[in-house]
Amino acid sequence: MSEFDLIIENAIVVTADADNRVIEKGGVTVSNGRIAHVLDQNALEAMKDRAGRVVDGSGHILMPGLINTHCHAGDSLFRGLVENLPLEAWLQTVWKAEAAILDPETTRLGSVVGFAEQLLSGVTTVMDMFWYPRQTVEAARMVGLRVATGGIFFDPPGMDKKTAETRPNDAERFIADFAEADDVFVATMPHGAYTVSPDNLRLAKDIAEAHGALYHVHAAETRAEQADVQNRYGRSVIRHLDHLGLLDERTVLAHCVHLDDEEIDILARTGASAVHNPVSNLKLGSGIARVPDLLDAGVRVTLGTDGAISGNDLDMWLALRLAAMLHKGATMDAEAVTTAQALAMATRDGATALQAGDRIGTLEPGKFADMVLVDVQRAHAVPLFEPVTHLVYSTNKSDIAHVFLAGEQVVRDGQLTRLDLAGPIAEVQAMAPQIAASIA
Amino acid sequence: MSEFDLIIENAIVVTADADNRVIEKGGVTVSNGRIAHVLDQNALEAMKDRAGRVVDGSGHILMPGLINTHCHAGDSLFRGLVENLPLEAWLQTVWKAEAAILDPETTRLGSVVGFAEQLLSGVTTVMDMFWYPRQTVEAARMVGLRVATGGIFFDPPGMDKKTAETRPNDAERFIADFAEADDVFVATMPHGAYTVSPDNLRLAKDIAEAHGALYHVHAAETRAEQADVQNRYGRSVIRHLDHLGLLDERTVLAHCVHLDDEEIDILARTGASAVHNPVSNLKLGSGIARVPDLLDAGVRVTLGTDGAISGNDLDMWLALRLAAMLHKGATMDAEAVTTAQALAMATRDGATALQAGDRIGTLEPGKFADMVLVDVQRAHAVPLFEPVTHLVYSTNKSDIAHVFLAGEQVVRDGQLTRLDLAGPIAEVQAMAPQIAASIA
Repeated sequence: MSEFDLIIENAIVVTADADNRVIEKGGVTVSNGRIAHVLDQNALEAMKDRAGRVVDGSGHILMPGLINTHCHAGDSLFRGLVENLPLEAWLQTVWKAEAAILDPETTRLGSVVGFAEQLLSGVTTVMDMFWYPRQTVEAARMVGLRVATGGIFFDPPGMDKKTAETRPNDAERFIADFAEADDVFVATMPHGAYTVSPDNLRLAKDIAEAHGALYHVHAAETRAEQADVQNRYGRSVIRHLDHLGLLDERTVLAHCVHLDDEEIDILARTGASAVHNPVSNLKLGSGIARVPDLLDAGVRVTLGTDGAISGNDLDMWLALRLAAMLHKGATMDAEAVTTAQALAMATRDGATALQAGDRIGTLEPGKFADMVLVDVQRAHAVPLFEPVTHLVYSTNKSDIAHVFLAGEQVVRDGQLTRLDLAGPIAEVQAMAPQIAASIA
Repeated sequence: MSEFDLIIENAIVVTADADNRVIEKGGVTVSNGRIAHVLDQNALEAMKDRAGRVVDGSGHILMPGLINTHCHAGDSLFRGLVENLPLEAWLQTVWKAEAAILDPETTRLGSVVGFAEQLLSGVTTVMDMFWYPRQTVEAARMVGLRVATGGIFFDPPGMDKKTAETRPNDAERFIADFAEADDVFVATMPHGAYTVSPDNLRLAKDIAEAHGALYHVHAAETRAEQADVQNRYGRSVIRHLDHLGLLDERTVLAHCVHLDDEEIDILARTGASAVHNPVSNLKLGSGIARVPDLLDAGVRVTLGTDGAISGNDLDMWLALRLAAMLHKGATMDAEAVTTAQALAMATRDGATALQAGDRIGTLEPGKFADMVLVDVQRAHAVPLFEPVTHLVYSTNKSDIAHVFLAGEQVVRDGQLTRLDLAGPIAEVQAMAPQIAASIA
């Protein structure tokens, strides 16, 4: 047995750590799925003969796997199906399609395709809210990435044909079954303040709290949602959630587009995370989140793709680029949101939001060896002056050459290693007429 | 000799014509570099034995090559060099780098890389403003795409070490030398109303008009530019250009971010084209152009990448997606800018702006066979319900499998056919330290 299972060398290393440390030429050692060292090339040279495998990272950036903190991978079945509608009208059609098409099998299929797309682009952890979380986990394991998920809460009859009464028990059992898994971050996932009653929002939080689990909710996505919750409960969305005692470090709020100053302060005070989903928010006409203001107030902002049914793909690189670029344009301030802030949203701060900052999100000794090698020798990638600038603005998802999960190579030369994708892709294509008919 | 040099069959055909015709399964015949027929598969079958080469487009969308109507390809040498500055401060640093680094050789090198990036992503025509237009043409020909370019006008000492006095003659000679070329659309290119005097703006237009050439100017990119021109000439940018008689169907205005209603009406009345450059406008903090208002007023809006020194790459697919998506978010109207409008900006309307609507921009008989085959069998591309929706929101530049220019295959399986890119990429990488030092 070698001392190290794997050494990656000769790469430009972007650790994404709190000091934004970059190593011009170096790499990592990996032992038992964990990063043992992050070193420059000189120091690595002395250790190479103690490694079972040495991967040459020349011409590549080595960085931590990206963390997508808001997704519905199974909705990849409906990519491009429901177009040109604002959220509320759009959701009615989405739910019609989901109710007609989804079952555990189709959910697993859609999630395999959605997770495959993401892993191929260097995403190694996804927070995913969907109707059949056990199939979400199965799909994540088939492809080879970590998933934060758990029982959904939804008061009307669900697209999983379940009613609100059965959800607490399902959520409890999910947590019991997956609490010990390295590759699952357990959660409860109430859909939103406009679809789940205060009592059920609270019940979902109680279940999560009893097990130290995460709590994931859609919040303040549109003006209409804010008005709806204000009308029903006499408080805006964030105030409503705060009033119910639901906001803390384990709470991850998707979207947070429409917030007033006081709501931003509430997020900062409680430590709840706000997931920025720029692609979905633009395409559905939801609006542009106040990301510079959130960052200024000290709110933890993380990054998400939302589902392919809203954004039409699951491209974390596009989300990353927009996180750095959109707010410069929207506020006409060329310094709004730095590249370091944007990269942290997609890596380190995402890990912290998932209460997994000790295990993922950066290249540091002791963490899981969840790592990506980004090809920087292509026409759109030269020259390269500063690696973080390059990752945020010039890297395309197709530049991801190799991906490692806990040291296991799960993407090699742009192909999954655990799964042949041709089958699932053909299955989804064959379903397209049936899916189109579901909303006809 | 076969009747047809090439037939492409079994593809989903997106013609991008004025009727937005899509053929579910079919293709084209090509003869002498021109499209002879656009047909469904049944009709094509009967012609296959009359073709020298038959390409199977199964699993692909066949569409016209994209048209990028604002670029500075040579600036790819400076990708990611100058960051976090608004346009005016940014330009001072850009010009310092350009003055230190650019000569005909380095311009050709940077342009080769910039054009290669674009051709690999399915762009077959680029309107490019740069200091050495003859080297721009050389680079375009080395790579294999059409270019609209010509003599730059710039009153201060130029980054090409020339003075304003020599520019008219250079511009005249460029037009004389390239007016007959199929692959060059000749133009004069005054930099902007804030860098070129009214007399020289007019002179550049006179030269263009004498030869039926195009006229390309930066206009209304920032609030500061509008204020500067207003202060100098007592008129806003568009009014100033109109007052000088510079706006007509042959005029292509880059950016047009900051326009009042009357300026929009002037563009509509004169027939000048407005090039939307969403990536550059966002990243430099210039603002968000009023694209829905421009379209409503009947202004021809086309699409551009600007240079890689502002946007950090030359991705027309990102520009296309943002053209359709950004304004939905900015105006909170999920129906703002349709996918058909966005695709037209990147194809048909771009061709019209270049006065080449009879030759490029759609798949129609008689036009040059400038065509792209887009792979739609990847994880982020299934299922596919509506091809135009798919192209606008889900296609990534890495999905471009094959590109044809006048029927010649210039990209095969994602690789250039005319040129081995490894050499130019290595050359640019080797220059990086010198380029970085130029602004130190």
